[in-house]
Amino acid sequence: MRNGDDMTDTGSTSTAGTRPRLVGVVGMGLIGGSLARRLVERGVDVVAWNHRPHPYAEAEKDGIRCVTTLAALVDAAPDVIVLCNPLKAMPAVLGELKPLLDAAPGVTLTDVGSVKGMVRAQVEAAGLSDRYVGAHPMAGNELSGWTAADPRLYDDALWAVTVTDATDYGRFLTVARLIVDGVGDRLIVLDDDTHDKAAAMISHMPHVVATALINELTGDSNRNVAAALAAGSWRDMTRVALTDPDRTRAMVEEDAENVEALLRHMAARLTAVADLLRDERAGTDNGEDGADAAARRAMGGFFAEGQPFRNYKARQRAVGDGMAARYEERDIRTGRDRWQADLLASARRGEHIVAIGDAGRMRVQLRSAL
Amino acid sequence: MRNGDDMTDTGSTSTAGTRPRLVGVVGMGLIGGSLARRLVERGVDVVAWNHRPHPYAEAEKDGIRCVTTLAALVDAAPDVIVLCNPLKAMPAVLGELKPLLDAAPGVTLTDVGSVKGMVRAQVEAAGLSDRYVGAHPMAGNELSGWTAADPRLYDDALWAVTVTDATDYGRFLTVARLIVDGVGDRLIVLDDDTHDKAAAMISHMPHVVATALINELTGDSNRNVAAALAAGSWRDMTRVALTDPDRTRAMVEEDAENVEALLRHMAARLTAVADLLRDERAGTDNGEDGADAAARRAMGGFFAEGQPFRNYKARQRAVGDGMAARYEERDIRTGRDRWQADLLASARRGEHIVAIGDAGRMRVQLRSAL
Repeated sequence: MRNGDDMTDTGSTSTAGTRPRLVGVVGMGLIGGSLARRLVERGVDVVAWNHRPHPYAEAEKDGIRCVTTLAALVDAAPDVIVLCNPLKAMPAVLGELKPLLDAAPGVTLTDVGSVKGMVRAQVEAAGLSDRYVGAHPMAGNELSGWTAADPRLYDDALWAVTVTDATDYGRFLTVARLIVDGVGDRLIVLDDDTHDKAAAMISHMPHVVATALINELTGDSNRNVAAALAAGSWRDMTRVALTDPDRTRAMVEEDAENVEALLRHMAARLTAVADLLRDERAGTDNGEDGADAAARRAMGGFFAEGQPFRNYKARQRAVGDGMAARYEERDIRTGRDRWQADLLASARRGEHIVAIGDAGRMRVQLRSAL
Repeated sequence: MRNGDDMTDTGSTSTAGTRPRLVGVVGMGLIGGSLARRLVERGVDVVAWNHRPHPYAEAEKDGIRCVTTLAALVDAAPDVIVLCNPLKAMPAVLGELKPLLDAAPGVTLTDVGSVKGMVRAQVEAAGLSDRYVGAHPMAGNELSGWTAADPRLYDDALWAVTVTDATDYGRFLTVARLIVDGVGDRLIVLDDDTHDKAAAMISHMPHVVATALINELTGDSNRNVAAALAAGSWRDMTRVALTDPDRTRAMVEEDAENVEALLRHMAARLTAVADLLRDERAGTDNGEDGADAAARRAMGGFFAEGQPFRNYKARQRAVGDGMAARYEERDIRTGRDRWQADLLASARRGEHIVAIGDAGRMRVQLRSAL
């Protein structure tokens, strides 16, 4: 039960016109190139532009219609344009698109940027927010560029779609159907701030932590001994610190406020454990039974606190290994006037939208509930 | 060039008697069981004991001689007994071995414990330190027990061998030859404190960091959203927090002082980055060019600091991929009176001992030099 057709099977909705007719892709690197190839594979027409024409010959062979200017891209009249260009090129691309899109009011604009608040600010500065819906696919790998483009990057991928109270419901549906019916993926609906805080939690802040770990080792007088003893746990915890530090720095600085807050939380958590280790030892050393009992209890609490996440991962593994039922599914309905709050609440319950019907009806899978 | 025989090939050393004749293994779980099977595979006789006899039938089929008492193990007169029992059973096992070993002065004692200072204190308390040499193989996986035992666990593994100024040179050589000639592995020689500090750096402290990360997510009101967005970086950085938290807690508390110090270092590093993110933003917000310039420079420093580790990992990958020459090798010599300091200095240079010759001569590979 993974696409809109399944909702038709229930007899209660129509899927007529759900699949986008033509999608414009700006930027044919890893993410944009993979998206264009994925859409073509699934029977969606794609028109694409890249700042340099080197991918065009191969892309045309893959069935992607390539154009040499953004004006030609807009002239093709796509239902939606997906900005897959680098974030640093965003202001220039938006500036060039603005007058072109003023003459094409039907075209909806979305993107794949990893920090949504910043992109929205740039879209607003360009005067294009009325037609914009944010998007961020959880897809990628350590490669980059058109030569690494692979439609399988989007296999069972989740997209975060970000909206505001002012977002047009029809344009949201256009982007949602691109993702669910066009790409064959699932999505959750968030506001920019919730997205950027969550991204700081699971990616941006951990990148800083990993970098601090390799700095700590590098600064140690016995660093060669430590490197000799390093095994799987060290390798896993520092892997992301090995990737391009300039790219990591940019990502962290683009989400600075959220990363700052989480780093302070983490520093407090690590200091608290350090204090408990000291207090446990003090109790042991001076033989006062009561002095270290509280520290031992608190240490038990530290190691128990994340148990809901361990249980969640164990359930996920059980599903993946075929040891448990697939994800629970249900239908939700949302109204035209409060859909943003309805869908944010759904995301907070851990539900992922996997099919879009008529009249605000959507099918969700319970995928990420701790 | 990976074993003692290679040194013979140079014509300058003799390998007569380097391989241990008979090894006693106490505890046939993942580490001990794998070690016993590895030694038998390589033609070394093994006599083994386990606190419960369930592995015996299969182990005997594998050519491991199993005995039902520690007295029978000592009676077999092994060159060396390797304690592979759980750390918590160590005082009881040492207590039972003490009178048996008093009647068998030739038997050398070693172990595979992950915290060396604590094991040595237990060995001293049992009155057995005159025959003890510490050891810690960097081998293991997330499994446990005899059924998971696999000789390949020791493929190209590094062992840390820990000694004091009082350690007998002959007993050290017995253990070193067990590792290099018997198991076919490499080793570095450390004092307990250097070992335990390095283990805290690359394993014990990072386990606390990973646990703090899953606690941070679990405590977040948008935890289901964050879990939905989590991808490879989050998965890698939290993997070790999913393993048995009681075992992690025990490991951390056994190395408490070192972990405490490193957690305070890490907290300071994370707080420093949080402050820089605040200062950079303050500078951007109020337009004072100079105010954030220092923060930006310091942030550049943070992301550059671990570059020697990134370069080291890149060189390792190049060797692994066959893109660079194998590790540089050379011979070192040590004297009977200052071998501990000589070999610790070698470990600090990132050299791993891969062959042991006569007269204090050893072949080393430059494996872990940042």
